[in-house]
Amino acid sequence: MTYELYYWTGIQGRGEYIRLALEAAGAPYRDVAREEGDGILSKVSREVATPSFAPPFLRDGDVVVGQVAAILLYLGDKLDLAPAEPRLRLWTHQIQLTIADFVLEGHDVHHPIGAGEYYENQKPESLRRAAEFRAQRVPKFLGWFEGILARNPEGQTHLVGDRLSYADLSLFQVMDGLAYAFPVLMGELYPRYPKIRALCAAVAGHSRIRAYLASERRLPGNENDLFRHYPELDAKA
Amino acid sequence: MTYELYYWTGIQGRGEYIRLALEAAGAPYRDVAREEGDGILSKVSREVATPSFAPPFLRDGDVVVGQVAAILLYLGDKLDLAPAEPRLRLWTHQIQLTIADFVLEGHDVHHPIGAGEYYENQKPESLRRAAEFRAQRVPKFLGWFEGILARNPEGQTHLVGDRLSYADLSLFQVMDGLAYAFPVLMGELYPRYPKIRALCAAVAGHSRIRAYLASERRLPGNENDLFRHYPELDAKA
Repeated sequence: MTYELYYWTGIQGRGEYIRLALEAAGAPYRDVAREEGDGILSKVSREVATPSFAPPFLRDGDVVVGQVAAILLYLGDKLDLAPAEPRLRLWTHQIQLTIADFVLEGHDVHHPIGAGEYYENQKPESLRRAAEFRAQRVPKFLGWFEGILARNPEGQTHLVGDRLSYADLSLFQVMDGLAYAFPVLMGELYPRYPKIRALCAAVAGHSRIRAYLASERRLPGNENDLFRHYPELDAKA
Repeated sequence: MTYELYYWTGIQGRGEYIRLALEAAGAPYRDVAREEGDGILSKVSREVATPSFAPPFLRDGDVVVGQVAAILLYLGDKLDLAPAEPRLRLWTHQIQLTIADFVLEGHDVHHPIGAGEYYENQKPESLRRAAEFRAQRVPKFLGWFEGILARNPEGQTHLVGDRLSYADLSLFQVMDGLAYAFPVLMGELYPRYPKIRALCAAVAGHSRIRAYLASERRLPGNENDLFRHYPELDAKA
């Protein structure tokens, strides 16, 4: 079975959380809009019984599912990227939802007034929002992730259990995005979170992920993406 | 088994999505902070193996789960408020995640610069964000909900299947919040979405929900809540 991922071309974006899961599992998939263009996204959305409010969405035979966390909930079972035990499976999902919140805040730093206006038209507001993001929000989120790694009874390089999960892959992706967008901030903060660093190093060293990151399928960061490098928004915490 | 809900006192907030599910099912629960004060929230968070990034969280014996959508995923099974069929169960969850996105945008209208500053210190920014919210975002979300109601093969007063689900309850709660915060806007828009209206009327008429809404357990809206009535942010779309 070949999975079909539907997501905008040209950015990592929210699609990347799905790509990392598919790539880590070595699952066959098509990145449909990269083959057929972005027009396919709305076309398919009009046709299916369960249209996603926005990309990404995934098609697996008769199943069409949207919302990153719901897609990963589904793939976690299919690709063995989540614990089988229901309580840990739910905890993995809870962590993923927290990552989703963090990602959205990372986006809203450069679009505090709304996604409908260009960054250039909301720059003063972005400067204010970025200051709070750097000083309050990033340390709060990273402290939480470091803390739950420390509390994981089965080891501290995985968020849940003793094996790779989709949440580990997603945390890696967030940290990669933060490093791209906020090199000054992360140069200061990152050393304070040794468990997150160890997790990210383990993910980056995973054989299939390493191959993916070196491939042309992995797009570089850019200023249309969720995490954007605007130097004026970056500073120490 | 008595469920324990942990959430801030004084507001409906995100806790209300959980309360509505518990109330609709007639499930026994304690609203712990309302009995013991807000201090219990951080105390319990420090003690458990799966601490939530923020309230609400739910305790059910040994299970402690946070994030509204994850709590409802869990309760949907336990309280029979979601379809049993896996594909529809996933679709219900996907809808809930879209509701969560909508709720957050409803909050950010009055806190575009960040939750760390008072509304009074981000009023001009809120005015700009509210204009986009009214003209673009609310119609886009409501159109999506109306559309999936129209596509539900099992009936159009439920988002999924032919019975009440936690997603129906949550959509009711969002609409109630919007009506509170944006009476002018919703006076204009709401008549355009007859299926959402029928769903909300059905939820409000549900015997246990009707009793709950008339009880002292249901707090009135206020300007510490997610949805706030600031007349300067309200206008036609």
